[in-house]
Amino acid sequence: MPSYPENGESALRGKKVLVTGGNGFIGANLVRRLIQCGCQVTAFVRPGSDCWRIQDLLDVVELYPVDLGGEIPGNVSCALHDVRIIYHLGAAGVHQATEDLSTMVKVNVMGTFHLLRLAQKIKVERFIYCGSCFEYGPGNLLKEDRLPSPVNEYAASKLSAGILAETFYRQYGLSVVYLRPFTVYGPYEGLQRLIPFGICRMLEGKDLELTGGEQTRDMVFVEDVLEAFLLAGVRPQAVGQIINLASGNEMSVKDIVRTLIEVMGVSSKPLFGARPYRNSEVWALSGDPSNAKKVLGWTARTDLRQGLHETIQWFTENRSRYPVYR
Amino acid sequence: MPSYPENGESALRGKKVLVTGGNGFIGANLVRRLIQCGCQVTAFVRPGSDCWRIQDLLDVVELYPVDLGGEIPGNVSCALHDVRIIYHLGAAGVHQATEDLSTMVKVNVMGTFHLLRLAQKIKVERFIYCGSCFEYGPGNLLKEDRLPSPVNEYAASKLSAGILAETFYRQYGLSVVYLRPFTVYGPYEGLQRLIPFGICRMLEGKDLELTGGEQTRDMVFVEDVLEAFLLAGVRPQAVGQIINLASGNEMSVKDIVRTLIEVMGVSSKPLFGARPYRNSEVWALSGDPSNAKKVLGWTARTDLRQGLHETIQWFTENRSRYPVYR
Repeated sequence: MPSYPENGESALRGKKVLVTGGNGFIGANLVRRLIQCGCQVTAFVRPGSDCWRIQDLLDVVELYPVDLGGEIPGNVSCALHDVRIIYHLGAAGVHQATEDLSTMVKVNVMGTFHLLRLAQKIKVERFIYCGSCFEYGPGNLLKEDRLPSPVNEYAASKLSAGILAETFYRQYGLSVVYLRPFTVYGPYEGLQRLIPFGICRMLEGKDLELTGGEQTRDMVFVEDVLEAFLLAGVRPQAVGQIINLASGNEMSVKDIVRTLIEVMGVSSKPLFGARPYRNSEVWALSGDPSNAKKVLGWTARTDLRQGLHETIQWFTENRSRYPVYR
Repeated sequence: MPSYPENGESALRGKKVLVTGGNGFIGANLVRRLIQCGCQVTAFVRPGSDCWRIQDLLDVVELYPVDLGGEIPGNVSCALHDVRIIYHLGAAGVHQATEDLSTMVKVNVMGTFHLLRLAQKIKVERFIYCGSCFEYGPGNLLKEDRLPSPVNEYAASKLSAGILAETFYRQYGLSVVYLRPFTVYGPYEGLQRLIPFGICRMLEGKDLELTGGEQTRDMVFVEDVLEAFLLAGVRPQAVGQIINLASGNEMSVKDIVRTLIEVMGVSSKPLFGARPYRNSEVWALSGDPSNAKKVLGWTARTDLRQGLHETIQWFTENRSRYPVYR
């Protein structure tokens, strides 16, 4: 695991931290990392959701099933009075097809608003909002001050929530940090996503049915993203900032998949064009990483080969953790 | 009344049009103007609100009390199947102090989302979203492509709703026009607002207790704004655009009040500094009017003296229409 000179680990030790979306891909990784840092971790999960990603941590994580579309129940608010840092990653519609759009907008926008009010009430030291690179719309080496042009309702609702968070910073001085991760991959990622899909197909000795693969993405290893989250929780310079979590390296899906197959060292074939592109495909999406370097002292230091190598190793050993494989 | 060469009046004749916030200041003026154009006007008003501004029109306007914070009731949706143009001006929190913030965000964001879905379903020709100059945050001659920095939750929620509208344009091709009026004044404006407050105090022979008056604003006469709304409903070039409704002339509140007193021709005195500024006062706010000129062929043609003159005349004759004066 890469280690940052001042990654905030010591500053975080002993603190009570709330992670919303604590059983999501990034959220579960973050919960795990915060526990390593010696934090007292509280997590919100969607009521009725399967907490398989943090199943082994349930005796050390204080877990609340909370529907972010509604008000936060009074007893939950009370229990959170001593939370010092909120990492807000919970969102609906990450996999848009499966969601009712009205619920999605409500959960993402109203849910963030309710959390901001809570953060204000309990006087947190830091509120870290996890936005999305899709808020920008397509583009290369996108800077944080670019006028956003979200591609769909999910991205629009994430942006709207981020704007509310920024407003709480400006109006009330709430210590908001607004992160915009690009294409994050690594352990615990959902199986329908490109890298896990590819790895699992190859582990089964099959070929990979894919789109044309001409779209480009900015891949960031989840372990690097976690370091940025820790830094965002403690670095004073981060407050009031929007910060891309990006490598600045743009690669086509074709090249990403070819690299994955190479690192995996198998004879599976990529079948580019076997699947249709999405209706509103984003053809290019990469972020300028300079603000992250400036205000967090962070860069995405794990190169794609190394990150894929670690991811493959993890999936090979842990595939059975996924509900579908149990 | 100023008349525009191609203000869309003939193109609007006979069309069924929905105005949300139809008993608000701009909304009620718009309802009146659309009736003059020969439109079949439908209006949403907040349940339980006083419809005094359109009291004399209730036999020609189809009125629905609809809470935009919830889903639009099925029978209302059905009755609107033949609406061709939606003017969405309904919002909560225009007078922020009186509103619950959570309801405000819900009404403004979710309400707009529900209306956009309705617009999509009934295949309207045009969806005109009325945003706010406060979405920008402070600044001079603000352009539409400036990165917004809303000053409070009201402005943030208006911006969020506007982003949703833009997204429906990009994703589904819904013919959205996004208007951002600056400081609109004229007949039917609320009595707590600067110009009506000043006029009413002077009509009562009293002096005017005011803030320091150093803040600057871009004043636009409501009749001009109505022309822009008509044009936004018909001009093809307007679709997909954000459009400032601004004069481009920035004046201090001090100068605005001095002009008002002068036009009124009374001996009332302005007591600058008698009231405190707001906590989050916006010190400068004016808009670049060039996009409106380009895509609507519109400029704010009524100068301040003329607009104030007409407003004074209207208030002198119609003050008794206001609930507080009845």
